[in-house]
Amino acid sequence: MAQASLLYLSRDDVERAGPAMAEIIEAVEKGFFELGHGRVEMPPKPGIHPGQGGDNFIHAMPAYIPAMEAAGVKWVSGYPGNPARGLPYIGGLLILNDPETGLPLSVMDCTWITAKRTAAASAISARHLARPESATIGILACGVQGVSNLDAMSVLFPLKAVFAFDTRPEQARALAGHAEADLGLEATVVDDPRDAVAGCDIVVTSGPILKAPHETIRAGWMDPGAFASLVDFDSYWSRDALRQADKWTTDHAGQYAYYRDVAGYFRDCPPVDADLGELVAGRKPGRETPEQRTFAANLGLAMDDMAVAPLIYRRARAMGIGTELPV
Amino acid sequence: MAQASLLYLSRDDVERAGPAMAEIIEAVEKGFFELGHGRVEMPPKPGIHPGQGGDNFIHAMPAYIPAMEAAGVKWVSGYPGNPARGLPYIGGLLILNDPETGLPLSVMDCTWITAKRTAAASAISARHLARPESATIGILACGVQGVSNLDAMSVLFPLKAVFAFDTRPEQARALAGHAEADLGLEATVVDDPRDAVAGCDIVVTSGPILKAPHETIRAGWMDPGAFASLVDFDSYWSRDALRQADKWTTDHAGQYAYYRDVAGYFRDCPPVDADLGELVAGRKPGRETPEQRTFAANLGLAMDDMAVAPLIYRRARAMGIGTELPV
Repeated sequence: MAQASLLYLSRDDVERAGPAMAEIIEAVEKGFFELGHGRVEMPPKPGIHPGQGGDNFIHAMPAYIPAMEAAGVKWVSGYPGNPARGLPYIGGLLILNDPETGLPLSVMDCTWITAKRTAAASAISARHLARPESATIGILACGVQGVSNLDAMSVLFPLKAVFAFDTRPEQARALAGHAEADLGLEATVVDDPRDAVAGCDIVVTSGPILKAPHETIRAGWMDPGAFASLVDFDSYWSRDALRQADKWTTDHAGQYAYYRDVAGYFRDCPPVDADLGELVAGRKPGRETPEQRTFAANLGLAMDDMAVAPLIYRRARAMGIGTELPV
Repeated sequence: MAQASLLYLSRDDVERAGPAMAEIIEAVEKGFFELGHGRVEMPPKPGIHPGQGGDNFIHAMPAYIPAMEAAGVKWVSGYPGNPARGLPYIGGLLILNDPETGLPLSVMDCTWITAKRTAAASAISARHLARPESATIGILACGVQGVSNLDAMSVLFPLKAVFAFDTRPEQARALAGHAEADLGLEATVVDDPRDAVAGCDIVVTSGPILKAPHETIRAGWMDPGAFASLVDFDSYWSRDALRQADKWTTDHAGQYAYYRDVAGYFRDCPPVDADLGELVAGRKPGRETPEQRTFAANLGLAMDDMAVAPLIYRRARAMGIGTELPV
């Protein structure tokens, strides 16, 4: 038996081979089901921090999901100074391994997968925590994650209207255009962030993750019965607003404790009621009344990536996409 | 500024572009100098363990050496059952990043670098712990690491004779042939492992790493004044033989403590007198008398890999070796 060949997938290749959001959500949900049953190996993610600024990182995110025959690592960088140089903030590669032999099957750009799987996890949280009839959504910060979170929510909910806020109005207008043209939604660009929170069934805050939250959203803005996904951790939320939470969840209780107790995020946030694996595995209840204000503060897990990577690899193989590399 | 392109280097490419052992030793020694001064970022290496056997691993080994502008990760697998299937025991890829932007510069097969940098670290330990006039060397287990350790020692010491032992005699004969033809040494294949220890100035044990040591080497075999490099950790050595150590070193005291206290290797081994960074940085003394029996139990560090990877990358670029990938 010779060693399997190695398939390289560029950013374009991944986009072309990538499955639709519905399929991504299904794969990530399966991963959370396994995680909730304690059947995923996912060690803490170590990293290095080159440069002077202190905010640069390159993280290794390894995971193994036996039931999905998925094993590998994402090696992902975030350099806040890159966009000013015409380079992406997030970059990196994912290596997918054959769990049978340990050898690499594929190396792929990880930008697309990072955007999509984060949104899929938001939507899976919403499936358990938002009201099923949720029709209005507010997006605060309309970059890559704002758009992909809107896309993912539109797969699972009968959305009718989106309210888009961004400190750069052109970003909000771009998201609104996408929402109207591609999702058939009624889209409103709002100048006041409150208008993307009050009256919304689902709220997504998707700005940059900050150690010192700007706390734009105040107590009383969020409606009873609404759900919020905090892609930016707690950056957008005042502590008083967060104290109105009736249910506070994350995607991994252990890693959340690290972010809170060691890394210094989520100060004075509510205690964790459940993690997403527990919700998906049915071990803890999601929303319990139509009036609850519910929150998901997901961190992004190596498991998310590894649940999606085999789909991309298999589709690329079937479609003949990618560069075959000598091993 | 556009994103830099990405260079893929196969196993063959790395071998062709790889620098000579003398240059590898110099690079790894520079890395240890930086490590000894606390100027290397090297978090613990997490891993996943697919399969039923329990001995399979895939480890993420990230490191950043600012002074060498070297940042990246090695994602390396070890599957004991692979050779029986015609597949390599060790496999995997190394991603080298640009520390300025965080983006990947190169993806390269990590087999060659793993073999060479391990031997280079042995030789650097020997430079501080073996007698400079060391002329005889014993190799116990003559696989990839036996050969590369012999090569590395021959760069730094005036070797005249090698004694080769292996439970598979054809491996010992192959190493002996290489030693005579390529290194000009007098080579003897020995049937008794004692003959590859007694009378030798340098001893290298390079068999498989075992949690339950076979303890072949007994007390009294190793000469006073000799140095031993334990590439197989403590697998080859009886506890009585190890108690004759006058100096016991490793390449990283922190990671050694983890292997000993958590993973269960190095039971009843002597306390660590120094690590290799301390020796190279001149913070602790190496050999102090001609009579001391000295030991290096090196673990293999992500720093070793990252010190060598930029050399390979730069040489490959200069030689036009490798496959240019779209990002």
